[in-house]
Amino acid sequence: MSNKQIDKHAFYLISSGVYIVSTSCEGYLNGQVVNTVMQVSGDPEICVVTALHKDNYTTELVMKSRMFSVAVLEEEVPMPFIGNFGFRCGREHDKFSNCNYEMYDGSLPIIKDHTLAAFCADVIAVQEVKTHYLFTGHIKHAEVLKQGTPLTYKAYHELKKGKSPRNAPSSVFNDQQGLNDIPG
Amino acid sequence: MSNKQIDKHAFYLISSGVYIVSTSCEGYLNGQVVNTVMQVSGDPEICVVTALHKDNYTTELVMKSRMFSVAVLEEEVPMPFIGNFGFRCGREHDKFSNCNYEMYDGSLPIIKDHTLAAFCADVIAVQEVKTHYLFTGHIKHAEVLKQGTPLTYKAYHELKKGKSPRNAPSSVFNDQQGLNDIPG
Repeated sequence: MSNKQIDKHAFYLISSGVYIVSTSCEGYLNGQVVNTVMQVSGDPEICVVTALHKDNYTTELVMKSRMFSVAVLEEEVPMPFIGNFGFRCGREHDKFSNCNYEMYDGSLPIIKDHTLAAFCADVIAVQEVKTHYLFTGHIKHAEVLKQGTPLTYKAYHELKKGKSPRNAPSSVFNDQQGLNDIPG
Repeated sequence: MSNKQIDKHAFYLISSGVYIVSTSCEGYLNGQVVNTVMQVSGDPEICVVTALHKDNYTTELVMKSRMFSVAVLEEEVPMPFIGNFGFRCGREHDKFSNCNYEMYDGSLPIIKDHTLAAFCADVIAVQEVKTHYLFTGHIKHAEVLKQGTPLTYKAYHELKKGKSPRNAPSSVFNDQQGLNDIPG
């Protein structure tokens, strides 16, 4: 078999959740919606990876701060909440003015609204992958904030009919660009 | 807030699918069940990452062959099929003797049974992350094989009550070790 093809529909079948990846750097807080968080190692040390588009403001801040937090969003999260973090740019808008959060160790924002679980990680490796950076984070804090069902990326599309950030890695995002898409 | 803790239950809320990652090297075919496949870049070049435990036979072969395929498993996949790829070791057992597959470009096995979509990738980066290697793969082939619902890792646990490979990265796997766990 050597019938080479790339059918983008195949990638829609990769399952993922929906998260907000945040950081703070020199007094600036920012975060963005992603569907790219994966656990890599689990015993004894837990590491996760997240992929962020090179052009995004969150990416710029994580590059400098070398740390990030992850909020696992609940299925019931309202679209305006996702819109605040996913369709506006933190360069012109303080996304954290609209949500409840607390600072982990005085330096890293943990979003409390619509969040089932939160992780805090130090960046231990950065890998350039075409349009994105892949950040490997060593977990220093992980907590469950609320009981509930995590929002899956599939449910996000089926139930919310939401718009998709322009710089999201997923082909699903890329195929469903909206007019208000602004890199996070 | 500086109340440091690592609650492993938080990681159960990261959503993922269930896949078989395969390769061939010097005439040997092998594959293993993972819940660690994520798309990183999508436009114009598509890259995915997968995390494999350092001790696994599949990992050893991917390190040499520098390529891997991914099979997205369907929700209806029977447990014995998962067991063949997830709970036996390819060092002592030819996992591919029990399934239908074809060779992409004569060199990379694409599993046809219980597979909704398949990807073939060349390894363009390897990142060591504690107990695992994170392989970045540049997609050279992607196809949809069958209509259906992808098996999620959550559904795998809820519906299949399956055992978990010992070397899986997820804490869920690690917390539910079975007697027959053999690295793949």
